[in-house]
Amino acid sequence: MNQDYIIPNEWSIIEEGFDAKRVKSSESLFSIGNGAMGQRANFEEYYSGDTFQGSYIAGVYYPDKTKVGWWKNGYPEYFAKVLNAPSWIGINVKIDGEQLDLHTCVRLESFRRELNMKEGWLSRSFKATLKNGAEVQVNAKRFLSLTHDEVGAISYAITPLNRAAKIQFTPYIDGGIKNQDSNWDDQFWDIQSIQEHGEQAFLLAKTMKTNFHTCTFMQSQLFSNEDLLDLKASVEQTETSASISYEKQVEKDEIFSIHKYGGYIVDRNHDKDQLLPVAQSVLKNATDIGFDTLLNLQEEAWAHIWEMADIEIKGDVKAQQGIRFNIFQLNQTYLGTDPQLNIGPKGFTGEKYGGSTYWDTEAYCIPFYMATKDQNVAKRLLEYRYRHLDRAIENAEKLGFSNGAALYPMVTMNGEECHNEWEITFEEIHRNGAIAFAIYNYYRYTGDYSYIPEKGLEVLIGIARFWHQRATYSTQKNKYVILGVTGPNEYENNINNNWYTNYSAQWCIKYALENIAKVQREYDTDYHRIMNKVRLSKAELEQWKEVAENMFFPYSEEHQVYLQQDGFLDKELITVADLDPSQRPINQKWSWDRILRSPYIKQADVLQGFYFFEDHFSEEELKRHFDFYEPFTVHESSLSPCVHSIQAARLGRMEQAYTFYLRTSRLDLDDYNKEVDEGLHITSMAGTWMSIVEGFGGMRIKDGLLSFRPQIPKGWEAYSFKVNFRGQILKVTVDQNGAHFESAGEKELQLLANGKIVTVTPNNLVTI
Amino acid sequence: MNQDYIIPNEWSIIEEGFDAKRVKSSESLFSIGNGAMGQRANFEEYYSGDTFQGSYIAGVYYPDKTKVGWWKNGYPEYFAKVLNAPSWIGINVKIDGEQLDLHTCVRLESFRRELNMKEGWLSRSFKATLKNGAEVQVNAKRFLSLTHDEVGAISYAITPLNRAAKIQFTPYIDGGIKNQDSNWDDQFWDIQSIQEHGEQAFLLAKTMKTNFHTCTFMQSQLFSNEDLLDLKASVEQTETSASISYEKQVEKDEIFSIHKYGGYIVDRNHDKDQLLPVAQSVLKNATDIGFDTLLNLQEEAWAHIWEMADIEIKGDVKAQQGIRFNIFQLNQTYLGTDPQLNIGPKGFTGEKYGGSTYWDTEAYCIPFYMATKDQNVAKRLLEYRYRHLDRAIENAEKLGFSNGAALYPMVTMNGEECHNEWEITFEEIHRNGAIAFAIYNYYRYTGDYSYIPEKGLEVLIGIARFWHQRATYSTQKNKYVILGVTGPNEYENNINNNWYTNYSAQWCIKYALENIAKVQREYDTDYHRIMNKVRLSKAELEQWKEVAENMFFPYSEEHQVYLQQDGFLDKELITVADLDPSQRPINQKWSWDRILRSPYIKQADVLQGFYFFEDHFSEEELKRHFDFYEPFTVHESSLSPCVHSIQAARLGRMEQAYTFYLRTSRLDLDDYNKEVDEGLHITSMAGTWMSIVEGFGGMRIKDGLLSFRPQIPKGWEAYSFKVNFRGQILKVTVDQNGAHFESAGEKELQLLANGKIVTVTPNNLVTI
Repeated sequence: MNQDYIIPNEWSIIEEGFDAKRVKSSESLFSIGNGAMGQRANFEEYYSGDTFQGSYIAGVYYPDKTKVGWWKNGYPEYFAKVLNAPSWIGINVKIDGEQLDLHTCVRLESFRRELNMKEGWLSRSFKATLKNGAEVQVNAKRFLSLTHDEVGAISYAITPLNRAAKIQFTPYIDGGIKNQDSNWDDQFWDIQSIQEHGEQAFLLAKTMKTNFHTCTFMQSQLFSNEDLLDLKASVEQTETSASISYEKQVEKDEIFSIHKYGGYIVDRNHDKDQLLPVAQSVLKNATDIGFDTLLNLQEEAWAHIWEMADIEIKGDVKAQQGIRFNIFQLNQTYLGTDPQLNIGPKGFTGEKYGGSTYWDTEAYCIPFYMATKDQNVAKRLLEYRYRHLDRAIENAEKLGFSNGAALYPMVTMNGEECHNEWEITFEEIHRNGAIAFAIYNYYRYTGDYSYIPEKGLEVLIGIARFWHQRATYSTQKNKYVILGVTGPNEYENNINNNWYTNYSAQWCIKYALENIAKVQREYDTDYHRIMNKVRLSKAELEQWKEVAENMFFPYSEEHQVYLQQDGFLDKELITVADLDPSQRPINQKWSWDRILRSPYIKQADVLQGFYFFEDHFSEEELKRHFDFYEPFTVHESSLSPCVHSIQAARLGRMEQAYTFYLRTSRLDLDDYNKEVDEGLHITSMAGTWMSIVEGFGGMRIKDGLLSFRPQIPKGWEAYSFKVNFRGQILKVTVDQNGAHFESAGEKELQLLANGKIVTVTPNNLVTI
Repeated sequence: MNQDYIIPNEWSIIEEGFDAKRVKSSESLFSIGNGAMGQRANFEEYYSGDTFQGSYIAGVYYPDKTKVGWWKNGYPEYFAKVLNAPSWIGINVKIDGEQLDLHTCVRLESFRRELNMKEGWLSRSFKATLKNGAEVQVNAKRFLSLTHDEVGAISYAITPLNRAAKIQFTPYIDGGIKNQDSNWDDQFWDIQSIQEHGEQAFLLAKTMKTNFHTCTFMQSQLFSNEDLLDLKASVEQTETSASISYEKQVEKDEIFSIHKYGGYIVDRNHDKDQLLPVAQSVLKNATDIGFDTLLNLQEEAWAHIWEMADIEIKGDVKAQQGIRFNIFQLNQTYLGTDPQLNIGPKGFTGEKYGGSTYWDTEAYCIPFYMATKDQNVAKRLLEYRYRHLDRAIENAEKLGFSNGAALYPMVTMNGEECHNEWEITFEEIHRNGAIAFAIYNYYRYTGDYSYIPEKGLEVLIGIARFWHQRATYSTQKNKYVILGVTGPNEYENNINNNWYTNYSAQWCIKYALENIAKVQREYDTDYHRIMNKVRLSKAELEQWKEVAENMFFPYSEEHQVYLQQDGFLDKELITVADLDPSQRPINQKWSWDRILRSPYIKQADVLQGFYFFEDHFSEEELKRHFDFYEPFTVHESSLSPCVHSIQAARLGRMEQAYTFYLRTSRLDLDDYNKEVDEGLHITSMAGTWMSIVEGFGGMRIKDGLLSFRPQIPKGWEAYSFKVNFRGQILKVTVDQNGAHFESAGEKELQLLANGKIVTVTPNNLVTI
């Protein structure tokens, strides 16, 4: 049974009623972020129950010393961890001397949280009765500003309901935090100074090893009802924290409230000697603007994002809530403005996995950002890998490759490999394929070829060299084979001839060859610059060709399908439907060896290849492969259902597509994988977007044109989305009667609808 | 280049000249042990240079919390570590107030160590000049008593050479020790009290978690030349140690010496409340007997061991030294008297690997102990596994097996699995085969069938059940396959149909079936007792048979060999001879994935099967498989050369057999694997014994008779060994003219020599 306590709502995530067992899940689900920082939905006031405290700053990481049972040559020395940063949201509350603590209060009523996605804020309200008999109403709201992205603001209001009470607010900032996933229980932060200046407090700290200098800050304003108060502040410091207390005798029904402003200044963006003055000025500016105006700006900024990124679904509130939650969280995580950043698998909602960059970015996220933002955002994500090319070459050298062969890391913060399971670090090499594919995908979508001669070609060459060296010749098969890999289906390790890997490898080499030729023909200067650098001989190119043309692909004549790997048909092919449900999820129930020798597939593998290279196969072939593999797929990766939803839609199986859609869009809201307490699955959320746009909408690029084959799930009245295509914005609406296209730009746009060319002129609805 | 500083000598290991870089290697090589305890050859006096301090008590271990990068279901919670115990050998020495320290003294001459294997003692002598100008001669000797196995004794004599000097001896016992391989830097010992009583000191400590209570003790006697002194003792305690100092003004050329007695009393052997009084009485007894008499007893005890276990080689000192070193270390590690103990891979010489019991015991050690000790020793080793059967069943249950299927642990101290690499813990399941094979081997050698109905059959049933469940049916191959295993060649992981594993599995099932039938026919009471317990149905037995009879074995028609695994021929088959020597050892030079996809074999795998089941294959088949696989074998496991030596000898390739013999017998002395500083390879030493007896001597059991096909390496004059066979002791001598058999028993013995029956009557040399 999946969890189902989130109340369906078109624009908000809502929880009503308090359940201590749900606290960590809700802390994940109600997370807020603004691209520059983010935090789990921890309570402002002290909470003695089970909680996972987390606050994160984009791009600030810690290289934690690798922990393994048995060292293998080539393992990276460090695992770059998403770093839990000093917390600034805390406000301890005492009522007549007793600490307000939802875990110990004698009565708690009308507990409600709301994450308002339309306007970008989180609120919480409840009525609590303390042991000392005081009854209070609490209303809290907070947000991380999109317009002032170093600042967050909290409004925390408390009203005594049954008697007057002495209420103390103690807002604080705290650097005494640790990562839950610290390998050695090390300290990651070195606190350098804690200072108070009047109403402001600052905590200067730098990260160990990486030496990121940060200033965490806060300032508060107090109000009685609407009136600003001038209360005496009482300051306290510990070795790791600073707090400023305010106390007031509050009448029954009087609203005593605090506006707290806080956040981070980081030397990624400022001179490290100027952190304190910058923080002072940022704080002053924020308090001058004030909570309400900042909140208005927040609503406007989110309206601007939604204007382009929203997908509206009519007639299915849960589906609507799901897609908006996905789009909201993606935008909270990554806005595409900072070229140093990337899209961590848990965003700012948890620590698990570490690193900020996986193949998820190229395989799942780029299409979303490409269509809903300016195309420079996607280009920036490509350039991120270009900047890491030298490190990918070093990484390959560690594993015995040479001559500029590049193996991009499985997990990284700065281009260096972080991960340390040999079957993944050394063997899940298909990631190289997705990185090359994204270059092709960018060009296909934007039509902007310039990236390839400028930068992309060098990446393609490094990757092609890797595949050429990694393939070996089997005299038995008289073909080139790729031995000892882990494919996208991580439930098989160290397998031979993973079809997806071999197919991507072949494609990468061919695509590199094609582009070398094109750049040679059309970009003479770039061609010579690159050739001077990479020193490619004709003989080497011939060898690449030889490998690509003679790549081995395991195939079953009996089933008429490509085999996921050489040994797949030797497995006991019992479908998931025939597997005892008590055994699932198998990754929580079975030992690893049992998973490995089972036929169960964690996520699309052969089908991932059919997704990337759809044009290379007929619909009949897709159908055969889908019908062969999906029954063995347990979808225990967050990245699985979206691909299957798209392909089910392509095969016209809309019910199945819808089921997969719900699974991908509500994966976290309904906690399909029983782990949402650890954080959200951010990168797969872009897959949810694809499920609608590429799945139901059937959007593709064909010969430089947008192409659609719109379908709609039975229970929906309509859905609509926008895409930014080559500078034109197209709005697509699909209802039970047909599809409607509308151009928001000034030029007309030609597109393919169900295979026929349609011309959409500005401000003219075209219905098919 | 291998190391070559050990001076060849028939009975001793000798090092001359001091080299700080060799200290850790020599600490391993000169290790001493008496089966109940053992220690690395650390210096008695303080040494500030690089050293690996180690003292170990048999059967006293610590379950260190598992450390892995990524947890997998089924991993054991703990790794039972060989536990570094409180040290009792230390004697700090001050000369005119300056600490004697070989790392800092200004001159060091005539440094010499000797490990006298014939008599079982370690000596060290040197002449040192201190910074203060004092020149001293030091002669130290120590041993761990075989006759009083809770006690060791040290004689440490010092003579001022250039002037009179004030010399202080400070013998101490120290519990402030840690394991080098501690996972979390935890404390493993809880020191409970430190006491001095007159000249005696005691340290009572218990191990954390396992609660082994121990008393470490010491007492000293001081001498001037030969005269016992009565010096004032000055006592000192720290939180972890006790020391007793003695000081004397020593004349030039006067010999000032200390006899120190120390050791351990453990609650494995005594009531835990009696450790102190027992220690007092053991100490009193030892000092009463005195160093010289204890040493005489030691010589006698070793003479008794050598009487049976020695292998004499004439005409090749290095070969002689090698085999005696191996036999000596095996006897230092395990004497077969304590049924709770087993044969740890590093014995008492280091910590690496942990656990005391590997498949090495059954595959390599049992033949040695069976032939050189009473047959009860081998039986005790079998019973050790019988006692652990329930835990092997639990272990299998953890991995999803049921109905009494047993998977013995890869590494254990108490029957529980310790190891935590999935590719080994969960997949190197062939260990089950060796455990069953040892039962067969014991019966084959001793003729004692009683063990099987009494205990062995239950083990065989548990193992057969495991194989039956572990094999799965491949519709493609129309055979039973065993997927996802690691064979003896650990340089391939998660492979399918490892021939050795499949062949052992088939054999185990057949052997279990055969013995169930035999016990049913001949041991009615046992049969019913066992069947009541294991509840085997006829249907289950039919299923076993079905699996065994239809087991798949990968085979190459082209090469006419069984394939190590399904995918072996897809590898790039470049032989070791064509591999750049700078790339070796590959386990230190290559990343794991590169090793895995290479054809290089760590140790005999298919050939291990041909070794166990030699009778099942023709010599022609052996030749073909040997010629196919050996060229890909890098022998980076200590367990590899011995099997190859035996098989090369069987194929009449005596030069190759001799090369492998040197490699196995001098593996540690010459440090072939560049890791002797971590400790010795104890279990493979039994393989060295097999190389001579089964390899050169060609000893087999055929139809209940000993059988020999003696050969001799070209450069040897002669070699001889004894075997204890069914109560008869046979001495075999082989020289360049032939082989000579002599019976030391009272009955005549029939044997096969080169296929012909020979009768050996008592005290009559038979030459063939």
